[in-house]
Amino acid sequence: MAEEKLPTRAEDFAEWYNQLVLKADLADYAPVRGCMVVKPYGWALWENITSWLDRAFKETGHVNAAFPTLIPMSFFEKEKEHVEGFSPELAVVTHGGGEKLEEPLVVRPTSETIIGHMYAKWIKSWRDLPVLIVQWGSVLRWEMRTKLFLRTAEFYWHEGHTAHATTEDAMEEMYRILDIYEKFCYEQAAIPVIKGTKSETERFAGAQITTAIEAMMWDKRALQAGTSHYFGQNFARAFDIQYLDQNNTLQYCETTSWAISSRIIGALIMVHGDDQGLQLPPNLAPIQTVLVPIYKNDAEKSAVMEAANRIFTELKAAGIRIKMDAREEVTPGFKFNDWEMRGVPLRIEIGPKDVEKGSVALARRDVPGRDGKSFVPQAGLTGTVERLLADIQASMLKNATAFRDSNIHEPQDYAHLAEIVQNGWAFGWWCGSKECEAKVKEDTKATTRVIPLNQPAGKGKCIVCGSEAHQKVYFARAY
Amino acid sequence: MAEEKLPTRAEDFAEWYNQLVLKADLADYAPVRGCMVVKPYGWALWENITSWLDRAFKETGHVNAAFPTLIPMSFFEKEKEHVEGFSPELAVVTHGGGEKLEEPLVVRPTSETIIGHMYAKWIKSWRDLPVLIVQWGSVLRWEMRTKLFLRTAEFYWHEGHTAHATTEDAMEEMYRILDIYEKFCYEQAAIPVIKGTKSETERFAGAQITTAIEAMMWDKRALQAGTSHYFGQNFARAFDIQYLDQNNTLQYCETTSWAISSRIIGALIMVHGDDQGLQLPPNLAPIQTVLVPIYKNDAEKSAVMEAANRIFTELKAAGIRIKMDAREEVTPGFKFNDWEMRGVPLRIEIGPKDVEKGSVALARRDVPGRDGKSFVPQAGLTGTVERLLADIQASMLKNATAFRDSNIHEPQDYAHLAEIVQNGWAFGWWCGSKECEAKVKEDTKATTRVIPLNQPAGKGKCIVCGSEAHQKVYFARAY
Repeated sequence: MAEEKLPTRAEDFAEWYNQLVLKADLADYAPVRGCMVVKPYGWALWENITSWLDRAFKETGHVNAAFPTLIPMSFFEKEKEHVEGFSPELAVVTHGGGEKLEEPLVVRPTSETIIGHMYAKWIKSWRDLPVLIVQWGSVLRWEMRTKLFLRTAEFYWHEGHTAHATTEDAMEEMYRILDIYEKFCYEQAAIPVIKGTKSETERFAGAQITTAIEAMMWDKRALQAGTSHYFGQNFARAFDIQYLDQNNTLQYCETTSWAISSRIIGALIMVHGDDQGLQLPPNLAPIQTVLVPIYKNDAEKSAVMEAANRIFTELKAAGIRIKMDAREEVTPGFKFNDWEMRGVPLRIEIGPKDVEKGSVALARRDVPGRDGKSFVPQAGLTGTVERLLADIQASMLKNATAFRDSNIHEPQDYAHLAEIVQNGWAFGWWCGSKECEAKVKEDTKATTRVIPLNQPAGKGKCIVCGSEAHQKVYFARAY
Repeated sequence: MAEEKLPTRAEDFAEWYNQLVLKADLADYAPVRGCMVVKPYGWALWENITSWLDRAFKETGHVNAAFPTLIPMSFFEKEKEHVEGFSPELAVVTHGGGEKLEEPLVVRPTSETIIGHMYAKWIKSWRDLPVLIVQWGSVLRWEMRTKLFLRTAEFYWHEGHTAHATTEDAMEEMYRILDIYEKFCYEQAAIPVIKGTKSETERFAGAQITTAIEAMMWDKRALQAGTSHYFGQNFARAFDIQYLDQNNTLQYCETTSWAISSRIIGALIMVHGDDQGLQLPPNLAPIQTVLVPIYKNDAEKSAVMEAANRIFTELKAAGIRIKMDAREEVTPGFKFNDWEMRGVPLRIEIGPKDVEKGSVALARRDVPGRDGKSFVPQAGLTGTVERLLADIQASMLKNATAFRDSNIHEPQDYAHLAEIVQNGWAFGWWCGSKECEAKVKEDTKATTRVIPLNQPAGKGKCIVCGSEAHQKVYFARAY
């Protein structure tokens, strides 16, 4: 796989991305328009992502459940903005069991409608609230221009759907999830996202508030890495989700929904990847360290493999996700390139001289060349590897944060804004009007990404129209 | 939920089942024909099932991946028996993104075809083999008569798909998986399944050999609880899955597929359930023990809750899946019934007298009334509970095995066979002919279930036609 080189990021970032996904063995194109096959290595990465999130949701009182993949078409027509948002993207089942269906069924693009229908049936009293359900699975949106992980017709995700008695409870839930997403990105993905609120234009179809986390890619474009929505009573009214409160009065619920999808893998690639290939943060890497035995003849082989097997067993027993690459049909150099392409954070090399000296060579994926190499004793190797993995994790976040911060600028005037967003993010005052937002988009292709929750004190002048502004927003071109 | 009683199993087994699924809060009917919603309690049970199996697959070298939900219609036409088997059950997407599709897409009923297509692309050399991939998800078959968990249009499962260089490797894989399934059923589900080979008539569409595990339900009907198929080169030839062997000659692969579905939850219900409701084996129960504090006034409450909280924390820390039921709006008696309905294996009661004496009352779900009750010291409760849960797990398997064995009979002649299968399984000699199999089915509604792998020595006379027979088979009416 790794024998051919990638184009560099500077040469052709889009092509670098496409080739990397294939060469790193993460995914492949499916024989179905716009769909992908997530290969075992990519899926193992996704499992590490999902298992952290699943645990975080369960620790905060959420439970999993499963709702049908197919949804009656009429359900989409119950919430006006929702149907407008999703109609153009639907895949429709018209025939089942050899007969034409009376009512077409839609392959779910998202499940607010069918879950809302069930909540209306299940929720009777204030005692039933909150309902905090998560569904793991895939959804389908008939996208026209697709790109592996970033935008595929079918993609993988969790969708949380919660119902609450009060506005306060629902808002608190929306922010609780946003915080979990932020924590995940910082601590696991080593991606320094910025959290905030979306403008009305950028809101989810049917939401009253959409909050999101935004990440900066290597080409300085923004990627929405997760969203958490507050619906108010929109869906509760559309689907009649009501409860009897403590005074025996019928009230509408307040609902939320939220998601992180397999798109996050696209973000990992575009934040951390380099011209040698993928680079995975140790906390999420399916293989944290790869062990490459090096020898030239049978005598060397037997000594080297004995030590390699011992090291492999020791590190594996300590819970380190280690892979031994004992292939004989390829050279050590080929293996080095191969595992660099796949983004394994740390390589362990062991040859005859290492066996003699009781040492191994370590090579960090995040520090190329000599600087990333060290020669350490085999004794205490587990601790050494654990410390190095933690250091790599921390360094990756530090580097990504420095990169992000050096590419966010405060625009001095509108011309400056237009210049900044060609190669960075602009953080400027905005009056909040759709007209100003639309003008920026038309002139520069940049959109408002998020209005961060932590705002500077005071007020300023809208960077577009000059009128009074009470909030600052990030403008950027986005995926 | 639990205030209304179930019909007894003897009164109306089918209705007992339907009501139990709803009252135990496992699943609900979906607003989509033949589909179900798996509720959080049912899904937690499914997660315990899937996590054991996922671990077992990974320990034997399997990896997970994800293939598209939609499959081009033409793929089904490549394997003759496969298309005949599945055509009547397909749900078909004819429109996407507002336009009619050139080629209709099928919501996958199983994924041999699309996975075969990808394997043809991925597999080049003997070094690429075996490929051992598992996909977790749901599939859809347009079933006419549905029943929650047992037969639903959409159901949940894993599907393993493997490709091998030789017949021996593929057959070994098929049996390895069958053994994992058997182990799962005995050790986790407490269901004493019988493993064996299916007759040609009962084989999976496109398979050369279908092996299966069969379980006996309370009404003595059989339920196929898992299958493992050997395809020979059928799919490899249909999808052109070839590899270069060590002599550089192109060879077709040999493939297998295998699955356990959410149907297994139906088996758990019908093997272990009783007239009070569900009964879950401790190894799979989402809640292994429920703690019910009992008090009449505030003074009692404070003493009881203090002890209850302490016990809860202790057992939870020991890894026991414990739930505290501190609801105030219902009586302890209501709670007892409620958790019995949901099949929680062990109940812990604590009242003011227990607090005084430093004891608790334990009630086993599998032993009704006084006999299942014991009064034990709070000191050492974790160990006591762990031992009791292990004992309940073992007892459930023992009881189910005794039940199964007492309901399998050797038919003396054809009339006896017909009598046995009205209320049990017949284990008799069979010549292997489709005609004899068809006659039994027509006369008695019983089908051949499995030809067990362990056969008695010698030969006998076919219980139907009297000609020489070299194998014994189980005849039973089946779900």
